[in-house]
This record gives sequence, structure tokens and C-alpha cells, in this order.
Amino acid sequence: MSDHPQMTDRPIGIDAEGMRAEFDSLGKVEVPADRYWGAQTQRSLYHFSIGRDRMAPEVHRAYGVVKKACAIVNRKAGRLADWKADAIIRAADEVIGGKLDDHFPLFVWQTGSGTQTNMNVNEVIANRAIQLFGGELGSQDPVGPNDDVNMGQSSNDTFPTAMHIAAKIAIDDDLLPALRDLAGAIETKADGWMDVVKTGRTHLQDAVPVTVGQEWHGWAGQLRDAIETVEETSGKLLELALGGTAVGTGLNAPEGFSADTAAEIADLTGKTFVTAPNKFAAQGGLDAMVKASGGLRGVAVVLMKLADDIRWLASGPRLGLGELQIPPNEPGSSIMPGKVNPTQSEALMMIAIQVMANDQAVAMGGARGNLQLNVMRPVVIDNVLRSVRILTDGAINFRRFCIEGTELNRERIDGDVERSLMLVTALAPEIGYNAAADIAKDAAKTGDTLRQAALRSGKVTEEEYDRIIRPETMTGDGLAGA
Amino acid sequence: MSDHPQMTDRPIGIDAEGMRAEFDSLGKVEVPADRYWGAQTQRSLYHFSIGRDRMAPEVHRAYGVVKKACAIVNRKAGRLADWKADAIIRAADEVIGGKLDDHFPLFVWQTGSGTQTNMNVNEVIANRAIQLFGGELGSQDPVGPNDDVNMGQSSNDTFPTAMHIAAKIAIDDDLLPALRDLAGAIETKADGWMDVVKTGRTHLQDAVPVTVGQEWHGWAGQLRDAIETVEETSGKLLELALGGTAVGTGLNAPEGFSADTAAEIADLTGKTFVTAPNKFAAQGGLDAMVKASGGLRGVAVVLMKLADDIRWLASGPRLGLGELQIPPNEPGSSIMPGKVNPTQSEALMMIAIQVMANDQAVAMGGARGNLQLNVMRPVVIDNVLRSVRILTDGAINFRRFCIEGTELNRERIDGDVERSLMLVTALAPEIGYNAAADIAKDAAKTGDTLRQAALRSGKVTEEEYDRIIRPETMTGDGLAGA
Amino acid sequence: MSDHPQMTDRPIGIDAEGMRAEFDSLGKVEVPADRYWGAQTQRSLYHFSIGRDRMAPEVHRAYGVVKKACAIVNRKAGRLADWKADAIIRAADEVIGGKLDDHFPLFVWQTGSGTQTNMNVNEVIANRAIQLFGGELGSQDPVGPNDDVNMGQSSNDTFPTAMHIAAKIAIDDDLLPALRDLAGAIETKADGWMDVVKTGRTHLQDAVPVTVGQEWHGWAGQLRDAIETVEETSGKLLELALGGTAVGTGLNAPEGFSADTAAEIADLTGKTFVTAPNKFAAQGGLDAMVKASGGLRGVAVVLMKLADDIRWLASGPRLGLGELQIPPNEPGSSIMPGKVNPTQSEALMMIAIQVMANDQAVAMGGARGNLQLNVMRPVVIDNVLRSVRILTDGAINFRRFCIEGTELNRERIDGDVERSLMLVTALAPEIGYNAAADIAKDAAKTGDTLRQAALRSGKVTEEEYDRIIRPETMTGDGLAGA
Amino acid sequence: MSDHPQMTDRPIGIDAEGMRAEFDSLGKVEVPADRYWGAQTQRSLYHFSIGRDRMAPEVHRAYGVVKKACAIVNRKAGRLADWKADAIIRAADEVIGGKLDDHFPLFVWQTGSGTQTNMNVNEVIANRAIQLFGGELGSQDPVGPNDDVNMGQSSNDTFPTAMHIAAKIAIDDDLLPALRDLAGAIETKADGWMDVVKTGRTHLQDAVPVTVGQEWHGWAGQLRDAIETVEETSGKLLELALGGTAVGTGLNAPEGFSADTAAEIADLTGKTFVTAPNKFAAQGGLDAMVKASGGLRGVAVVLMKLADDIRWLASGPRLGLGELQIPPNEPGSSIMPGKVNPTQSEALMMIAIQVMANDQAVAMGGARGNLQLNVMRPVVIDNVLRSVRILTDGAINFRRFCIEGTELNRERIDGDVERSLMLVTALAPEIGYNAAADIAKDAAKTGDTLRQAALRSGKVTEEEYDRIIRPETMTGDGLAGA
Repeated sequence: MSDHPQMTDRPIGIDAEGMRAEFDSLGKVEVPADRYWGAQTQRSLYHFSIGRDRMAPEVHRAYGVVKKACAIVNRKAGRLADWKADAIIRAADEVIGGKLDDHFPLFVWQTGSGTQTNMNVNEVIANRAIQLFGGELGSQDPVGPNDDVNMGQSSNDTFPTAMHIAAKIAIDDDLLPALRDLAGAIETKADGWMDVVKTGRTHLQDAVPVTVGQEWHGWAGQLRDAIETVEETSGKLLELALGGTAVGTGLNAPEGFSADTAAEIADLTGKTFVTAPNKFAAQGGLDAMVKASGGLRGVAVVLMKLADDIRWLASGPRLGLGELQIPPNEPGSSIMPGKVNPTQSEALMMIAIQVMANDQAVAMGGARGNLQLNVMRPVVIDNVLRSVRILTDGAINFRRFCIEGTELNRERIDGDVERSLMLVTALAPEIGYNAAADIAKDAAKTGDTLRQAALRSGKVTEEEYDRIIRPETMTGDGLAGA
Repeated sequence: MSDHPQMTDRPIGIDAEGMRAEFDSLGKVEVPADRYWGAQTQRSLYHFSIGRDRMAPEVHRAYGVVKKACAIVNRKAGRLADWKADAIIRAADEVIGGKLDDHFPLFVWQTGSGTQTNMNVNEVIANRAIQLFGGELGSQDPVGPNDDVNMGQSSNDTFPTAMHIAAKIAIDDDLLPALRDLAGAIETKADGWMDVVKTGRTHLQDAVPVTVGQEWHGWAGQLRDAIETVEETSGKLLELALGGTAVGTGLNAPEGFSADTAAEIADLTGKTFVTAPNKFAAQGGLDAMVKASGGLRGVAVVLMKLADDIRWLASGPRLGLGELQIPPNEPGSSIMPGKVNPTQSEALMMIAIQVMANDQAVAMGGARGNLQLNVMRPVVIDNVLRSVRILTDGAINFRRFCIEGTELNRERIDGDVERSLMLVTALAPEIGYNAAADIAKDAAKTGDTLRQAALRSGKVTEEEYDRIIRPETMTGDGLAGA
Repeated sequence: MSDHPQMTDRPIGIDAEGMRAEFDSLGKVEVPADRYWGAQTQRSLYHFSIGRDRMAPEVHRAYGVVKKACAIVNRKAGRLADWKADAIIRAADEVIGGKLDDHFPLFVWQTGSGTQTNMNVNEVIANRAIQLFGGELGSQDPVGPNDDVNMGQSSNDTFPTAMHIAAKIAIDDDLLPALRDLAGAIETKADGWMDVVKTGRTHLQDAVPVTVGQEWHGWAGQLRDAIETVEETSGKLLELALGGTAVGTGLNAPEGFSADTAAEIADLTGKTFVTAPNKFAAQGGLDAMVKASGGLRGVAVVLMKLADDIRWLASGPRLGLGELQIPPNEPGSSIMPGKVNPTQSEALMMIAIQVMANDQAVAMGGARGNLQLNVMRPVVIDNVLRSVRILTDGAINFRRFCIEGTELNRERIDGDVERSLMLVTALAPEIGYNAAADIAKDAAKTGDTLRQAALRSGKVTEEEYDRIIRPETMTGDGLAGA
Repeated sequence: MSDHPQMTDRPIGIDAEGMRAEFDSLGKVEVPADRYWGAQTQRSLYHFSIGRDRMAPEVHRAYGVVKKACAIVNRKAGRLADWKADAIIRAADEVIGGKLDDHFPLFVWQTGSGTQTNMNVNEVIANRAIQLFGGELGSQDPVGPNDDVNMGQSSNDTFPTAMHIAAKIAIDDDLLPALRDLAGAIETKADGWMDVVKTGRTHLQDAVPVTVGQEWHGWAGQLRDAIETVEETSGKLLELALGGTAVGTGLNAPEGFSADTAAEIADLTGKTFVTAPNKFAAQGGLDAMVKASGGLRGVAVVLMKLADDIRWLASGPRLGLGELQIPPNEPGSSIMPGKVNPTQSEALMMIAIQVMANDQAVAMGGARGNLQLNVMRPVVIDNVLRSVRILTDGAINFRRFCIEGTELNRERIDGDVERSLMLVTALAPEIGYNAAADIAKDAAKTGDTLRQAALRSGKVTEEEYDRIIRPETMTGDGLAGA
């Protein structure tokens, strides 16, 4: 017969009212009886009830992975009894699955190491495990938040680890697919319009022709580059601080703990996480997050131009550039009937602004490390996850509700090309830059067509003009220029 | 007998399940039957479900004030029937009181003019008024969201107006009191410690003495200046765009509407709101918000230094500067027993970083106006309100849980003053800078006391040394320097 | 007969080649024989030769004011011999007048307190005074850089003082006049165009009419507000740290030194400088600079919109909005003949970006104070002065080379108003929002005029339409809206 | 006998006074007779005399490479006569070598496409070539700035190309070696101190021990990662826009021009430049610059921590942390004799702030592209080159004047380890977290040593204590943690 408590299949939830006593090294604290959290979480709620920004659920869920991996490794090494480990792992799985989300109430604005969130996770898992054993919540028996759930760990290595896991998953599984889909949708449109000649514009001024497809592939090209940059700049998130414990030395963690837990986390997440080769760098700084955020900022910069270009090309309907017809998703104005506004562009531009600002927060946080620890961690992970989230959703919505439904106003596009004075550029190699400039200025002044002015100049014959000034041959071939 | 519907005292809430049909100028839309919102809100939810950032409740509540003021003015002028106005006003009051908060589900990332939030407000008030008349929700009869609730208004003037009201109330009623309390708490401490001499530090290096009270009054002085700056820089929020309607001309609003509604809003809020003298500036730009945000940024800059200084002065307990004992609010470490960390400082520093970043978002948004409208409004108000909120709560908590409980480590402070080599500075006017420098360097090299080195130098007698080198007379008198 | 050296009228300049020995408390240093600077300047050049950014001459010149004021006050108090003071004052006047500019070679990237620049000033003035007495350069006799020129001062109070003087003069005497001239030029144009009706644009989409004058007064109004903000936010620069000496206590400065020197500086500059009431705040922080920079940022935000609006309204010539004709100052393109680009707008937009970024540097620097001193001073003053300078010159050039020469394309403006579908808005109060929307949509779809669609709808008669839809009455009256 | 002008070996320099007439498509302009530049440069000087920021010489020199490469390719293809090409190439070589630096006077704040700088280069090379042929300066004969020097090019493809070349060379040849040297110097120090045990610090509070070598390797690790990031993020600079001409289509450039010129540039520079696959992305955006700047920002973030840590560890000499002795490069204070300040740290921190702010300018510029061209180019390249420059020089000086001369204060370091209460952490796995915490709190309260408190607790025996609490075994092994 077993000499340890037996785990039974109790459902999630605490059937209790009022308050329950919990304790930590500072003493006793009352917590709501129907919550799994313990004394330190409650202390944090009391001292750090600031704003409305809760730690993102992605952080707790990633922390679940950390706790599970540690329990597995500790069990294998015989440091943690099998029966304890089993309960911890089960509770961690519930955390990972989001089933205990309601038990993580802490705010972003807390201790800069994330210790309180670590303890929140430790406490919830410990109490849930205690519950599975039929024990008394708050007793830390038979499972203790520090000694068992946090075994071999510190906030200083687990919180950075959870940050990396949470950010990498969100970037890989949410953001990158959304961005690739957006790029793909733009490319599909672009491919269909590769032969539609339109006026180019530089300095906002009429310039020589491009095709609509080239213009759209320009955006797609920028976006593809930004995607590649995100892939590169998020790579360092794969290196985990776990095993460094309090100051990077790994004190109180057994040998091999770094490598073993990283391997376990890689296994649990299906991503190629490895242990960071230099724990002092990993814990003293936040460089991998700063780098990743820089990649997100690059996406914002590209989306800003995309959204801004689209709304200008769709400006009008009659008195703007008027080349694009974007979907009229909603009435545009509460006062001007029949108005259609480029609202998807506007939302995306605001998102871009926010992401650029968030990135500043990340950089400022990253630059505030001291000695063995950077304690600006919660603000950094919050800004990174927020950026990932709004970029992801923004990209999805912009694709669905703007890009995919956008059509060309061919009448306007075709007419504009014909009226462009900048077609004169094609004459320059033949008659010289200055002579060509005179023709353009003459046409601008008189209001005549370029053809009329060109022939009047005596520099070209009718036959020459018609041979040279053919917009459709002026757009070259493809995307790579001459 | 009356020829119009009678308002009855129906409670808030819609006892219905499933979906209800609503319509707008684009057609019919199904909305949840138990919600007051209408077609345009629902369209926005569909097209702009982005991230987790909902429009802050302060915005809707301020919008309630706008709608109420307009209804009052429209009623007075006879443009809006009394009975309609009464119902709109009652519903608006419910919005203002936060009783309809659950009916404003929209996200920050929407149309850049805030039109969708304006329509959300119009729709909720219209439907609630219809309900009060016993009418059919979604019928726009007898009260229409555009024609009645939005009468004489545009999103383009109401949204900026609601932004100003929301921000000004939050700054005046929440932030400034919290900051003044914090400054007051610091000054109370400072006054009690005006005679405690401690080493000064410049470049982090030992410098000539100051008193603890001077140091604390330094922080308080910075904070008082920052408070004054917030007062100044939030002043322009008192100028309201309402009455400019779509483009600033006031089209479709009756003469006097600007001034009348501003007076009404002043009356309703108890703040000296006035109509903006130049509606084209007010609607084309966001300058009052940018200015106000700059003031908030100034607070963040000051709090950053305060929090950072406190944590360094409290560093230790044995191997840091160790001058301050801050309250041990929670166990500091999940791995290092007995550790007390400056968590309130860390939270406040993270808040400062966030506010500085938010301010960048506001400035970037402010710089993105085009022609008659700046359509970066939701991102701007969201960042401003978020900054106000976390600064407010951060200041309150830092006062309660750090400043008020901080005590001095007199043993350390007193001992340090005695050991400071920089007391030598007081000798410089007597024996010259270079001779004084030689003494300090000699003491540093030998490890002797300054007194020993000074006497050894032969530049001062014992009697002179003891007369000149008196830390308590070196700190001057008060705060104004020499 | 006098027992002190006699000052003679020796011209500026040192007729020597090779190197000269100078010394400071660390020992001897060789400096170029034809330069006035001494040992500490030379040490700084050796250790801090970084980039190409020299300390701005405005800083040295302002420092000349500080040194002169201190010499006057020290002389009055009998602490500094008259004959010494006279020479120091004369040399300081030469510094103020820019005649010794070549003797201030130091870089921005030096000690964060600006001590090296203070010593540069001390050394140059001392050596120049020595020269005037016929003494030996580098001997510190009869005038010493520390004991005489720096008497009663520290870098920690003089450098902030010089920063304030330099920034306030540049803002008041350079920037504000340039901005007022720009606002005035815009207003002159605006006044001339108050009756020219054009299409308004919101969300870049055709909206109800405004007049050109209203649009231009919108920009002017934003600019006037920004000017007012600069006036307010630069006010704290009038408070001077001088008299706080090393740590704010005023150690080694005589009683009354703060007030006396501030009064002298006010007298010398003609500006209402006063002594800062709290020296610990003044030296520990950089808040007055952060505040002033926030005001400059506000100007940048406004100029960004102005420049961007102008270039879009001037876009074309045929395929853009085409309302404005800006001066063709130069050939626009090296490849496209006859192209005219909005280059003044582009320069101003780049300036705005730089000022917004500089402002971030100032805020980050301001947030990095520690204890009794903020040692991020050189980077802060450099960014503020750079912002002032490019805003000043940018405003002047934009006025001269863009605003003053801009003309209207009346043909385009008039034609566009007629074609605008948004005139329908004026019908909404008569026939309801939804019915008006139907008319606009019908016209958009068919390509008909709004009049055709309106009459076809049966909602208005010909006579009603012509009475209501009159663009010239839709623009209201003046700037204040309804 | 040749039918074309003969090039002769005339030295650089124009022996003329007064003014010379030059012309462009807008007409005649007078330029200083001793300068090579022409009409468009002079127009730019007149219209854009703004601030003190000249276009960096790196830009012109890189432009020399572009012009040379184009001349080579045009000559090979027979489009440009050999004799003309020879003169253009010779003049371009002089530009590349910096011999014509005095002839590039333009400011950063000019047209946003850099057209004026392109024309400056075209004009200087054309006039120098004319001079070599003995022709008349300003005649554009036999070499024209547009038709010959700019043959097959546009500002819109050449300026981005010159930006990439200038930035890549500066990063590869200046910055990266300086950073690698700094990292190497840190590592050398670290390796020598791997066995020196010191107290760790987290949250600024005493924590468990690390070795000095681990701490220094932490910085080095961060720096090595930042170097790797710069290598990655500067990679896109290798893709060149040249061949896209005005709008990306390559109009007026012959087939193969993109690839041929890129190969030539690679050959001339020894770097693996290639032609950008998507010219519309390359010219419409500035993404490669934004990405590269993000990498520079990452360096700044790391250097900020390094410099800040160093100055705190060197704080004192008696009343700070006092672990490090940094070189006393200069007298620290103008008022406090014998003070040594961490000036190299301060300079580096200010540099870091500036680089972070410059990076914001780059991102804002990058986000302001429109359609076929981003016209925020000069501000972007100026900020990137400025960041590279100050980071390079800052890294070199910090290494030479701080890192290499830094020594340990062993007395202080050793004593501190002994006094640290956080050694208690090693007891936690044996006696439990809470019991260990009680011991630490007892020692803190009583002022006793940890050993005394531990034995008093009865939780450990003397023998156990001495076996477990051995700082030298608590620091683990190497950098990888447990």
C-alpha cells in the first residue's frame, strides 16, 4: 500500500465561499475561498492594483509549460517524488490549456522580475495539486509552491523563459501566418493586374507609368521582407534562461537542468528551444525581446505605408486619386450620407503607430537592466504580446475586409495615364533632358496634351512620338527594374 | 391628450434572446437581442475585432455628456421635441452614470474618426429611448440615432469633444489629486528629515553633504513642477470642437450651437469648457491632446528618477547604499529567502516607461492629420487615458506602499558622512583647489581619514580643520542654494 | 603705484607654434600653443574624440554670460579683486561675442555634467586674462581657471544655467519670430482666400465644402497654438541653478550668490531670469528642458501636418488633387524632365521627424538623473538646440520658398466643388439621413450629377434643390463653426 | 587623329575668383567660380540653408562608387563613349577618395529624394571631367551632368543605392571591428577574473554570489549577441535599387543595367552587393535602413547597461558599491577636489540615448513612404550614419579609456561576499525556503552574521553550515548555469 496521498480526478473549481487563509514567509493572508491562488498573489493584488492591464494569459500558459517541464526533469532525476510530479504536471496541463485562466488576476505593473506572477503560477498549481490529493488548500502540503512547484527554479530564470515561450508561440503561430496570408492576398491581386498600366507617382507628383501589379507587388515585397525579418529577429527567443536560477549561476538547480528542461520544453511546444549559452547575458538583459520587437516594428512600418497608399489611391470618390474601389463595409459618416471611408486603413495605421510606440517601451525597458537582472520584464512582455496581437488581428482584418474586396476603377486609371505629362521622360534619351523638359513645361502651361506640345516643339516627328511614347512599354518587365 | 408617445419608467435591460434586426443606410444587420446597440456597432464588431483593447469607458461616459448637452440645446431651440429630448437625456444620464457600460463593446482599432463609437452611443441612446417609449427596438422610431440623437452633430466634432471631456476629467479628478498626495507625502517626510546630514552623490560618486530633507524636497520640487506642467498643458482640453460638425464649418448645426453646447457641457461637468475659436484647427489636428500628453510624459520623467533614486538608496541591505528602509510588502524572491525588493519602484519605473512610449504614440498620431480631419483619434485617446490611469494608480500605490512606510537607516547615513572624502571641498576656498585635491587623493590612496591626510599635508592646522570641516554647516540652509 | 598686474589691450590670438605646457590637478598636459585652452580641455579632446558633434557655440556663449555675471557679483562682494574681475569680464565678453569660438573644440559626448566644457570656458577665459596682463599662458597666474574664473561655482550649477540661457535665447530670439512670421504669412494668404469655396476632405474622402481661407486658417490656428505652447513650456528655462554649486546646497558660494547672479544674468541678457527656488530639483533633474522640448515637439507635429497637407493639395499637376501651385524652385527630377516637386514640404517633414526624435532623446536623458545630479546634460542641450535651429530655419525657408509663392488653381478648385457628391449633406436635415444617402449612392453609381440623382429620387423639387444646395452658403461664416 | 577631346592630367582645383554662370532646365544660376558644383546645387544652397547638418561625406563618396560603376557599365554597353567614361571614372575616383569633399556643401534638409545631392555629384563630376578635357566649366560640354553622368539613372534609384553603400561600409569597416574589439577587451578581463567571487545583485539587492568573470562575460555575451544582430540586420543593405530608375520600372535604363551595375559595385567595394529583386519595394520603402537601424539600437541598449553597470560598480570611492577602480582620466569636478567620475560611462550612455532616438527618426522616416517613393531619405541616412559613427567612436574610447584600465578593489569585493545574507539561499534545498528566510530575517534584524543566525536557529549544525555555505562553490561553473 502506498505511503503517499493518492491523486483523484477532482474537477476544476473550489466549492467554497468567503475567504481562506494562506501563508508565505511573511505570514498569513486571506484570499477568496473560491480561488486557487495563495498569499503572495493576494499581496500583489493589494499592493499593485494599477490600471486595467492584467498580465496576458499567454504568459501564464507559457509558464505552465515551464512548470511542467521542470516537474518532468525533477521527477526523472529523482528529486521530486513521482506522485507529486504527476499532480504538478496535471495542474500545469490545465494551466497550459487555459482552464485556470480565472485564477491569474495579477497586473502588469508589479515587481519587475515577474516574481509575483511566478508565485501566482506556483500557488495555483500547488493548490490545485493539493486539491487533487484531497488535501487542504493553503496548507502547502503535500505540495508546496516554492519547494515543489518552483523546485530548482527562480523567477529570474523562469519568467524570462515564459516570456520567450509566450512570444515565440504568438509570433510563429499567430502573427506570421496572418502576415503571410496578407502578403499572399496582395500578390494574388497583383498577379491579376500586372498588365494594367497606371501613372506612377513620386513626391506625390505624376511620374512615369507603372502597372498596378508592380505597385501591389511593391507592397507585397516590402511585406515579405518584413516577414523574413520577423523570422530572423525572433530566433533568439528560442534561447531559454531556465537553469540560471537567481543570478545566472544555476545555484540550487542540479547539473544538467538547463539542457534537460530546454529539451523538454522543445518537446512540449514543438519548437526548437535550446538553453541559452550565457545565462548572465540572458538574465541581465532583455536583448532577445528588444530584437524581436524591432522585427515587429519593421512590420508596422511596412503596414503603415501599405494602408496609407491604399487609402490615398482610394481617395475620392470624385475629387481624389480614385484609382481603387475599396469595400464599403459600413456607412462612413454620421452626418454625410453615402460616404465611404477607408476605415480598415485607418485602423491599421493606428495599429502601426501603437506598435512603433510599444517598441519604444521595449527598448527603454531593455536598456534598464542592472547587474544580474533586468527588472523591466512585465512591461516588456506586455508590449511585445500586445504588438503581436494587434498586428495579427489587424493583418487578418485588413486582408479580409479591405484587400480581398478591392477593385480597380479602370476608367480613371486608364484616363490618367493618357493625361500624364511625365510620359515625356521616354523622350529624354532621344532628344536630351532639357529639350524634353521644355515640352513638358509647354504642355503644363498651355493645357495641351503632351503629344501636341511635343510635335509643336519640332524635336520629334509624329511617327517618332507614337513609337516612343507607349505607356505599356514604359513599365518594363516584372519587378527587378532594368 | 398627447399626440406623442409617453415615456415610462422601464428599467435598464432587454429581456430577449437570440438576435434582433437593426438597419442603417447600408441595410439590415442582426444584433444580439439583449443589447441596445444597432447596425453600425454590429458592423464595427464584425470588421474590427482586433486585439483586446476596448474603447475606454471614460469615452462613452463623456459622450453621454455630449449627447445630453446637444439634446438640451436642441430642445431649447425647438428643433427637438421636448418629449424626445427628455428620453434622450434620460438615456444619456444612464450612459454617463456607467449603467449602460455593457453596451459599448467596440475596440480601439476602428475608424480613425471614432465614428463607430459615436454611432454606438447614438444607437444605444436611441434604442433605450425607444424602449422608454415602449417602442420597437431597432425601428429608429420614434427616436433615430442619426436624425435625433446625433442632431446637429458629426463624429468629427463630437468625438474630439468627448476625448477632451474624458481626458480633462481624468486628469483633474484622478491624476492631479494623486500626484498632489504623493508630493505631499514626500514633503512630510522631507520636513521631518531636514536636519539629517548625509553624503551627497553626483556622477554616483561621493560628493559633499546634503540633508535627507533636501534630497527628498528635491524630488518633491520636481514633482510639484510636473504637476504645474500638467495643469498648464491640459488647459487646451477645455476648448471643444462641438459645433464644427463635419469639416469645421458647422454645416447642419444651427447658429450658436457651438457656444450653447459648450456652456451646457461646462454646466454638466463643473469644468470651464468653452467652444474652440478655430474649429478647423480643432478638427484637423489633435494638438491639445499632444500637449496634454507631453505634460503626462513630464510626470513620468520625474517619477522615473524618484523611483530609481529610492531603490538605489534602499539597495542592500548590506552591500548597497543602504540609507533607506522601504516597507517589505511581500517576499522578494521565489528562490532567495528573506529578500526584500524595491517592487514599488520597479512598478513605477515600468509605468514611466509605458507613459513615455504612449506619449510617442500620441505624438505620432497627432502628426498624422490630413486636411479637415485627423483620423488617428482612437489610438490617441486610448494612450492618453491609459497613461492617466496608470500614473494615477501608480502614484497612489507608491505613496501608500513605499513612501509613507520608508524609514532611515541612521547608522549607515551617519557613518557614511564621516567617511566621505569630499568634505575636502570646504577646504578649497581656503587652501586652493589643487592643494585640496592632493589631500583627497592622499587619503584615498592610504585609506586614512580625511582629517589625517589634511593634517599631514601641512596646509591646515587641527583647529582650522575642525572649524571648517563640519558637515552640518556644509549643507546650507533650505532649498535655494547659496 | 599699483601692486597688481596691469591689463593692456592685447588683440585676440596667440602668436606661437608647437605645443605649450598646461597643468591641472592630475599633472601636466601639452596643448597646441596657439589655443587658449588648458589641460582639462586637452584631456577631454584626447579621451572624447567621438563623432562630429561639437558642443554648440550657443553653449559657450551662454557660459560667457555666466562667467561674467559671477565675476561681477564676486567683485561687488570683494571676493574677487577688481583688476582680476575686469580681465575676466573682458574675456567673457569676447566669449559672448563669439570672438573666441575657435577655442572651444569639445565634443558633445563627454562627461555628462558638462564639466569639461565648464573647464574649457574657465581655461580660455583664464588664459586670455593672463594674456591681457602680459602673463605666461598656462601658469594659472595671476588668474586661475578654478579659483578665479570658477569662483563660487560648480559645473553642476553653471552648466544647467548655461543650458537654460542658451536655449531660452534661441527659442525667444530665433524660433518664435520665425514661427510668428510663418503663421502671419499663412494668415495673409488665408484672409485673401476666405471666399474661395473648395471641397472639404475627411478620411481623404470628398466631404462638404470649406473655403480655402478656412483651410489655411486651420493651419495658422494650429501654429498659433503651438507658438503659445512654446511660450508656456519654455518659461521654466528662466529659473537658474546657479548658486547651488556642487549638490544644490550652495557650498563654497557666498550667501546671496544665487539671487545676485540671476539678477545680473537677467540684466545682461534682457530676459527675466530668476534663481530657481529649489536647487536640488534644478540640478537633480532636467525637467525644464524636457518641458521646453515638449513644446518644440508640438511645433513639429503641427508643421508635419501643414507640410503634408500642402504637398497633397499641390499634388499633380494633372493626376493629383491639384488645388495649389507651389513655387517651382528647382528642377524636380534628375530623370523626369519638367517635374516640380514639393521639396520644401519634404524638408520640413524631415525636420519634424528629427525634432520628434530629438525630443525622445531629451526625455530619455531627463529620465536618467541620479540623486544630486542628472549627468545626461550635453546630449539634452545638444538635441534641444539642434531642434530649435532646424525648426527656425525650416520655418523661415518654408515661408519664403513655399507659402509666400503659393497660388490657387481656381479652375480645378471650382470644378471640384461642383462635382462633389457630399453636397447632399445639406439635404439631410430636410429629407433625413437615409434618404440623402440613397441619392448620393445613386449618383455615385450612375455617374450622374448630384442634382440629377436628387431630382430623380423625388425627395426634393428642383426649386428646393437649388435653394438648399449652394456650396457658398454651406461653408458657414468664419472659423468658429456653428 | 582623335575626333574627341583629349583628357589631360590637370590637378584638382579651379583657379578663379568671383562667380561663374551655370544652367539647368530652369535657367541660369551664378555659382562660386572656384567650386565644381553647378546650378542645381546652388539652387539647393539658396533654398535649403537649414541648420548646421551637412550631408555626410560618406554619402558623396558612396555616390562616387555609383557613378563610377554606371560609367563602366554604360561604356561597356557602348552607350557612353570611352573617352567620356574615362573622364567620369577619374572624377568619380577623386570623389571616392575624398579629394573633392569641399565641393559637396548641401544640407540634410533638402528634397526628400536626395535629388539635390545626386545633382551635386553629377555636376561636380561633369565639371571636373570638363576641366580634364580643357573645356569650359558650366557648359555641360562635352560632359553633361544629366545626360552623361546620370545616364540610365534617377535620384530615385541612385540615392538609395548610395545610402546602402555608405551605411554598409561604415557598419562593416568601422562599427563592427570597434564592437568586436570592445567585446574582446571585456572577455580578456573576464577570463582573468573567472575565479573572483563577488556578491550578485538582483533588484539592486544583495543576492547570491557570482564571479567577477561571470559578470563581465554577461556583458560580453550581450555585446556578442548585439554584434551578431548587426551583422544580420545590415544584410539587406547589400540589395541595391540601382536600375529601378524613376519609379522602379527601370525606364530609360538598358536591360541588364541592374545586375551589371550591382556586380560592378560589388567589385569596387569588395562587398557582396547584389541588385534588389523588387525595385518597387526598394524605392517605395526604406525597410533595409529601418532594419539596420534596429540593429544599431540593439547595440545601444546593450552599451547602456554595460556603461551603467560599470559606473555603479565603480561608485564611491567609499560610499558606493566600490568594486571597480576605473581609470582617473581627468579631474572629475571643477569644485570638488580629487573626485574621479565615470565619464566614459556617461558619454557612452548619452550615445546610447542618441542612437535610440535616431532609430526613432529612422522608423518614422521609414513609415512615411508614399506610392513609388519614400522621400524621407536624407533624414534617414543622416541618422543611421550618425549612429554608426558615435557608436564606433564611443566603443573605441570606452574600451581604451575605461575597460582596459579598470581594476578590481579586491578588499571590498571579498569583504562583501562574506557579509552577504543571501548565502542563505544555499540552505533552502536542505531546510526549506521558509526556514531559510527566517534565518536571513533574524540576521538582518540583529546585525549578526548569517552563520550566527543559522546556528542559533537550530536548523543546521556548524558542520553542515560550513559545508553548504561556501561562496566559491555557489557560483557554479562557467556561463551556462546549471
